[in-house]
Amino acid sequence: MAGAPGELVFAPLGGVGEIGMNLSIYGLGDERRRSWLMVDLGVSFASEEQLPGIDLVFPDIRYLVSERRNIAGLVLTHAHEDHIGAILDLWPQLKVPIYATPFTAALLAAKRFNEPGAPEISIKEVALGSRFKVGPFDIELVSVAHSIPESNALIIRTPHGNVLHTGDWKLDATPVIGPPTDETKLRALGNEGCLVLVGDSTNAVREGRSPSEQDVARTLAELIKSARGRVAVTTFASNVARLRAVADAARACGREVVVVGRAMERVVQVARETGYLDGVQDFREMEAYGYLPPDKVVALCTGSQGEPRAALARIAADEHPEVTLSKGDRVIFSSRPIPGNEKAIGRIINGLIDQGVEVITDRTHLVHVSGHPRRAELEDMISWVKPQTVIPVHGEALHLHEHGELARRCGVKVLRCRNGDLVRLAPGAPDIIDEVPVGRVYKDGVLLVAAEAVTTVDRKRLSFAGIVTVSLALTDKGQLAADPALDLIGIPERTADGQVMAEIAYNAVVATFDSMPKPRRRDPDAVAEAVRRAVRAAIAEHWRKKPMCRVQVLEV
Amino acid sequence: MAGAPGELVFAPLGGVGEIGMNLSIYGLGDERRRSWLMVDLGVSFASEEQLPGIDLVFPDIRYLVSERRNIAGLVLTHAHEDHIGAILDLWPQLKVPIYATPFTAALLAAKRFNEPGAPEISIKEVALGSRFKVGPFDIELVSVAHSIPESNALIIRTPHGNVLHTGDWKLDATPVIGPPTDETKLRALGNEGCLVLVGDSTNAVREGRSPSEQDVARTLAELIKSARGRVAVTTFASNVARLRAVADAARACGREVVVVGRAMERVVQVARETGYLDGVQDFREMEAYGYLPPDKVVALCTGSQGEPRAALARIAADEHPEVTLSKGDRVIFSSRPIPGNEKAIGRIINGLIDQGVEVITDRTHLVHVSGHPRRAELEDMISWVKPQTVIPVHGEALHLHEHGELARRCGVKVLRCRNGDLVRLAPGAPDIIDEVPVGRVYKDGVLLVAAEAVTTVDRKRLSFAGIVTVSLALTDKGQLAADPALDLIGIPERTADGQVMAEIAYNAVVATFDSMPKPRRRDPDAVAEAVRRAVRAAIAEHWRKKPMCRVQVLEV
Repeated sequence: MAGAPGELVFAPLGGVGEIGMNLSIYGLGDERRRSWLMVDLGVSFASEEQLPGIDLVFPDIRYLVSERRNIAGLVLTHAHEDHIGAILDLWPQLKVPIYATPFTAALLAAKRFNEPGAPEISIKEVALGSRFKVGPFDIELVSVAHSIPESNALIIRTPHGNVLHTGDWKLDATPVIGPPTDETKLRALGNEGCLVLVGDSTNAVREGRSPSEQDVARTLAELIKSARGRVAVTTFASNVARLRAVADAARACGREVVVVGRAMERVVQVARETGYLDGVQDFREMEAYGYLPPDKVVALCTGSQGEPRAALARIAADEHPEVTLSKGDRVIFSSRPIPGNEKAIGRIINGLIDQGVEVITDRTHLVHVSGHPRRAELEDMISWVKPQTVIPVHGEALHLHEHGELARRCGVKVLRCRNGDLVRLAPGAPDIIDEVPVGRVYKDGVLLVAAEAVTTVDRKRLSFAGIVTVSLALTDKGQLAADPALDLIGIPERTADGQVMAEIAYNAVVATFDSMPKPRRRDPDAVAEAVRRAVRAAIAEHWRKKPMCRVQVLEV
Repeated sequence: MAGAPGELVFAPLGGVGEIGMNLSIYGLGDERRRSWLMVDLGVSFASEEQLPGIDLVFPDIRYLVSERRNIAGLVLTHAHEDHIGAILDLWPQLKVPIYATPFTAALLAAKRFNEPGAPEISIKEVALGSRFKVGPFDIELVSVAHSIPESNALIIRTPHGNVLHTGDWKLDATPVIGPPTDETKLRALGNEGCLVLVGDSTNAVREGRSPSEQDVARTLAELIKSARGRVAVTTFASNVARLRAVADAARACGREVVVVGRAMERVVQVARETGYLDGVQDFREMEAYGYLPPDKVVALCTGSQGEPRAALARIAADEHPEVTLSKGDRVIFSSRPIPGNEKAIGRIINGLIDQGVEVITDRTHLVHVSGHPRRAELEDMISWVKPQTVIPVHGEALHLHEHGELARRCGVKVLRCRNGDLVRLAPGAPDIIDEVPVGRVYKDGVLLVAAEAVTTVDRKRLSFAGIVTVSLALTDKGQLAADPALDLIGIPERTADGQVMAEIAYNAVVATFDSMPKPRRRDPDAVAEAVRRAVRAAIAEHWRKKPMCRVQVLEV
């Protein structure tokens, strides 16, 4: 485009080829200097199997830190954790202005309020559907339906042309809360012209269209009405439309609603403040659960993904101080398992069944719909916006692939890229021109640890085969000043033929030391290494696994 | 029943309320002395998350060991690992006669042959459909369709009446290999009379009837015919009908079959020996894969559950020495994820998609059917056998519950029991009268470890927060003879404000020792405990996680 400064570029720093951890950047300028727009800063949830002791995974933002003076701002599409969950931990390294709509801003503020030591973040609130400038970027919000209030697609207007960054979206004519996806505005963008659509691929493998949130509300109303005992409903706390549907269903049959779980309480408070529960009856304190008759109460619980410390897990294990369930009660999972959580959820379901509780899931009833577009919805979006190119994001390889193939069949060009690819969107045909550093950072306790650090690797090794620790006191004459001390941790106590493993290790230490030539015995490093090898070999002979072994030689 | 000796009892020692680890016992006699019949001795697969470093979980057979002189024999229903997988490790403690049909016997023998140090087990081969005595138990085999050749239900005839132990089964009029479920014999049992049906609940939550193995064969034939490049099919190695379907489909379009993966090779060999691949073309050596044209080869691979060391995972990671796939090739998952394996399978699928390989799963094509009965099949079984009581086994709480409810609706009494419940089946109405010790034993390396042992608990702790090891050399005057030595393993290197964690731990050791009253410093145990507490607290202050800490005090 004539007179346009440099190039318009795009890079995903997370969320491509994986679930969660969404972070995209757009740049205007040239190699020498670009102005950056960040979109979202999300978290991903770690698997215990891959990363023992790690709960959260953040994108590595070292590139953004190095460029921070050129970052015009961070715009949040919506308040799901995979879009905002890294902000409290990473923002202090960036300190860039954040733009968010009222509900997202309020939820982030509430989260900050609940986390001791969280940074002071000032958020610039922007109205739904508004148009505002972030540095050289001209942003317009497009309301889209999703599974949380105030989800927004972004129209990013630049001298090079327009981009649609969809965020998470679906089509839903009756979303219970908020407006349907703004078709008019999207069609207008199509007429105005759209270079590139950067779009949600999560459900690109699913045919057809998703049911409406209203259909789910209807099912929930029937299930709550037909229940004879207590009812507990678990869902994502942030799905306010779902909370509202449960509340309305409860009221229709004279039941009170009790909110159980901190995340749920937080969302309810924010939703009240922002008007999304206007007209809904007040909820009762958790203490009321105990004295309300079984057919007069509905508990809205956290824990739909099987989280072991959330409300439902504690209720299922009969460990909740206030809320109990028993034979004849009904639990509704208004949710779908996130891959990896199936077993944890299964354990909770089995615990409930064992107590005689009836469990209803989306396997048999329409008690959940996804917040992401299925194939017919993706086709609608492309037909409205008429982008020249689609860049599939938000999803694993399979989803990105299917989204791309679908776009191609709609006659649109497709560019597949990976996290860290720097894509020139304009001028010229979109193309990958460079790469920027990307990666992962783990939250371990309260600390951030680089994914490359040995910390989690060592923990994984420890979890597989344990550790032997050996202490030796060595004189400068190369003699042992005390009996060697050993500890075997995480190692079977006895061999198959009943020998004590600790004795085997001890004997290996002594025999190794005794067999070393005298001059070598004076070298603490040589002693340590010889002992380490001998201990591992001696144990492996009986176990066929080699534990870690650390030898400390004290020179006395 | 007049003249019947004592009672007929039943106890599940595994497989109830869980997937896998099937082991049931039946007893004849009275409290003073019973003769026991064992049915199956299976394994369960551990989750890395719950049990780091443990692959296999066996039932705790201490009760059977104490009763071993009264065990008449072990009858195997079929050769799946969750029914025979604990034999090689546990049988040496029992040394009871094993009864199995030819395919099961041959597969067990092949497994033994491949495992160094496996015990000599002599198996009594029994013919399909045969009737034989095991101590006081009169056993008759009933052929049932399942996902492996030679699955058998057992009619157990006793002076007190008859029991049907279904094992794993389904109804399938065209099972590709072997006869359909023997409806005639089951109806005859119904006429003869059946006290109790002890039955498979795995699919009791699924409505209707499962499709036939023949339907899957047809789909596979179409998918292999329409492929342009290489085709790889992954399935459970033991599903010989599926292997045969793939082989027939390959031949129909002029493709050769290459078998990839040791478990698959073993089953193919056993199936050849026992005649289940009669008439199927010879398979090619794996080396042939490299020089056969892409449209002339089908690879039959292990790894359908995402097992990281199996053939498909290595192919997907491009690490297999012989077998590669590339753009335009097709991989068919002729399988369904076992709960807990979804993520591992997802990683393989994503790896293949990233290489441009087309992936087909049972989500979109009928490339797999379960080997277990859905609800209409369960109803058929009950209507044929007309048991007085159903005892649901094989399944988690949800499945057992649904199976029980279904039986009740069929007008049959239901007895729900847990692992370890001793159930009197006759005389009188079935009832739980006692319990026997049950539990789990882990295979850790080559050793068996009691589930109660601290081994895996310690490893899980290590995996969560690592370990600090401290060595001190203490003189009898209560002085340190050398600088303390420390090792921090699996702990972040630095605090949030950049301090070195190892220095913090070191300083805590020194400060704690120095602050101890002089007489206490001479007590090695007191020193160790004070240091341990101080180190954990100092690290937790910065990390909010408490590592394990082991202090070794050498008295020099």
